[in-house]
Order: sequence, then structure tokens, then C-alpha cells
Amino acid sequence: MDRVSVVTDIRQANQNAAHENRKVFDKCGSCVINLMSAPGAGKTSVLEATIREIAPSFKVAVIEGDLETTFDSDRIRAMGVPAHQITTGSVCHLDARMVAKALAVFPPDGADLVVIENVGNLVCPAEFNLGEDLRVMVFSVVEGADKPKKYPLMFHTSDVVLLNKIDLLPYSGVALSELLRNVVEVNPRAAIFPISCRTGEGMEGWIGWLTQELKTRSRQALSTLKT
Amino acid sequence: MDRVSVVTDIRQANQNAAHENRKVFDKCGSCVINLMSAPGAGKTSVLEATIREIAPSFKVAVIEGDLETTFDSDRIRAMGVPAHQITTGSVCHLDARMVAKALAVFPPDGADLVVIENVGNLVCPAEFNLGEDLRVMVFSVVEGADKPKKYPLMFHTSDVVLLNKIDLLPYSGVALSELLRNVVEVNPRAAIFPISCRTGEGMEGWIGWLTQELKTRSRQALSTLKT
Repeated sequence: MDRVSVVTDIRQANQNAAHENRKVFDKCGSCVINLMSAPGAGKTSVLEATIREIAPSFKVAVIEGDLETTFDSDRIRAMGVPAHQITTGSVCHLDARMVAKALAVFPPDGADLVVIENVGNLVCPAEFNLGEDLRVMVFSVVEGADKPKKYPLMFHTSDVVLLNKIDLLPYSGVALSELLRNVVEVNPRAAIFPISCRTGEGMEGWIGWLTQELKTRSRQALSTLKT
Repeated sequence: MDRVSVVTDIRQANQNAAHENRKVFDKCGSCVINLMSAPGAGKTSVLEATIREIAPSFKVAVIEGDLETTFDSDRIRAMGVPAHQITTGSVCHLDARMVAKALAVFPPDGADLVVIENVGNLVCPAEFNLGEDLRVMVFSVVEGADKPKKYPLMFHTSDVVLLNKIDLLPYSGVALSELLRNVVEVNPRAAIFPISCRTGEGMEGWIGWLTQELKTRSRQALSTLKT
């Protein structure tokens, strides 16, 4: 068995599992976000800030993926939101089978929004469909304006790009205009929001977009039920 | 062939290739650094600042690893230092066989120091021995103090940890003392240097360490030749 056929087998198995996850999510009527980024770009902080805004109107559940520790699921549960931790050991991304195992013990019944926070890695997570509706990536602006071109796949496959830590722009030497240009070049269809989840700057745009998306999906689900 | 045996085969093939690379480096008398970090932590900028300091005394050659683009090797060549670019396509790390192919067309004859700059990824590169003498990792302090515990392998296997972007500490909310404590907990034997390659702060400690290391290795190589 050569490397190509091994990779093909792994991808096919993942697609099959993602398809099964999709059925579970559809049955629960949940909108599912695969939240991705490099380590330390601020996924969990963005998620906390997002939950604070939308939790009064929508029911949220979170699946956390990390190599080690339960730091992130502890943070989410401390907000009163149900969270399940997947620890991957040495595996640098979540795959659909890991999520399937999580769903078996942590079914998202009644959750309007399920957020799956992936392992921090700007490369591999983008290759694995988990059965999500939306891919949302967080990129820390201090990582540099050239990164969309150097690590194109995650940028290319994301529905939303949150450019986080803009409060550090004045001290970082990174030009937001150049970064925006490179994101658009790699993915012209993404919704892009420059934000700082620490200061709250720009968060209203992202929260507005997400709220609209959840309402639209909820109306669509309702009309599907009626027909 | 199951997943475990595939992984074992890949690792063994990598070890064999790393062993062959080691022979090439030994023959050339080069000290070899595997330079690793998450994307945007500042590997190339640290490398540029390091080359500026040590190039007058030591001959340097660089092998760059990226998914896409030749941005990094262009930057190094612009300094008058020979550089070879490996583009991995979708592969999220360098492996020893990629380096072997590079060495076939880019032999490091006469280089005192060969730096192999890995793909930006805080997870996978640490699993692949390239035949290096030293593992040096760059960590951007704004990525957060908890990361050594969440992504322990690279911290654990590095000889040197460069904590970069300390000029952003006052604006980031990250406590350097907590970060240092977590690095030491994961790897008590690493040499740790808090630096800013943008302002130059702390660089003299790292440059002093590296210079000493290169001199010692060069003396050892000389005495081996004599005996």
C-alpha cells in the first residue's frame, strides 16, 4: 500500500464519517461551525466573546479539540455552556471519526449552534471535513500579512475569516491593508471581519453576521418541516 | 495495513533518511539547526537577525521549507546567503527525505552552520528528525502562556526556545513569568531566551550561546580530525 492510496483511504473514511455526523446535526437542527486557526490566534477567546453575545438568544454547545489538557472546555463550561473535550494525543487535527465518538456521548440535542474548536494548526485541520455547515477561521494579525499566500488552504476553504488582535496592529509593523488584500486574493468569497476580542473592536460585525446566519437557517429548517 | 503500522513505517523510513543526511552533514563539517515554530512566530526574521550577527565569523547556508511561495528563500538570498527552497505543497512539515533531495542539489560544502527552516506548524515538524544537531524553536509570546502545556512535544524536544515578540508583551495581556514557568515545566533542560528580533532586545544572549556552540563544535571536529 503506497502513500497515495493510504491518504486516499484516510480521506474517504473521513468523508463517510463526516456524512454520518451531518445526519446527526441535521436531526438535532443544529448549525455547526468548525473553528480553526494556528495556535494562540485566539479561537477560545473569540468563542467566549461570541457566546457572551449570542447565548441569550441561541442555545450553544461546544466540542473542544486539543492535543493535551482540558483548559479550553473548562473555560467554556465556566460560562454555563455545555462543552466536551476531545484530546487527540499527538494528532494535529480533528477528524470526523473523533467528532462521531464525541457525539455518541455528547449529543447536541436542541443546540441551535454547535461550535467545534479544532486543534491549533494553520495547515492540517483544513483537510478534514467534520460535517460542519460553516468554516470559521481566526487569524492573528501579528502573524504577518504574507500568511494567506504561504498557508492558502485554510483561508481558501473558510466561509468567515476573523482577523483577530487588531489592537496590536500599531505595535506589530503589520499592514492591515496588505493582509486584507492577500486574504481576498486567496478567497474572494469569504466574509472578513477585523476584530479584537480583547477590546471588543469589530465584534459587532461578526456577531451580526452570525446572528443573521442562525436566524436564516432556523427559518429554513422550519419551512422544511412544514413542507 | 492498519494505521499504526503505516505510521511506524513512515517513522522508520524517516529515521533511515535522517541517518543518511547526518552522514552528509558530518562530511561537510556543518552544525545543523532545525528551526521550528507556529506560522508567523518570526522564524525567518529571527534567522535574518541571527545571520546579520554571525555571518562575519561563520559561513551559513539555509534550507527553507514552505507549503507555497519562495518568499523566505528570496529574503535569505537577498542577504547574500545561499538558500534553497523546498515547497511541500500540502504537506505540513519537512521530513528527512525532502531534506535529502535538497542536499543532492544544494550540498552544504564548507558551511559552518546549516539552518533548515521548517514549515510553520507547532505540532507535526517536531515528530520528524531531519538529521539535525540542534532543535531551535521560536515561540511568539502573544500566542499565550498556556501553549507549552497544550502543545508540549515541540517545547519538549527543543534544545533552545526563543520567546519572540517580547516588545508586544505590554499590550498583549500575556505574563512572561507564567510562560517561562510553563516552558521550564515541559522542558527543564532547554536554553530559553526572551527576545524581540524587531527591536533587538535579548538577541545578544541567543547569539552568544550560538557562537559558543559553533566554536565548541568546530574545535571538537578539529580534534577528531587530528586523532
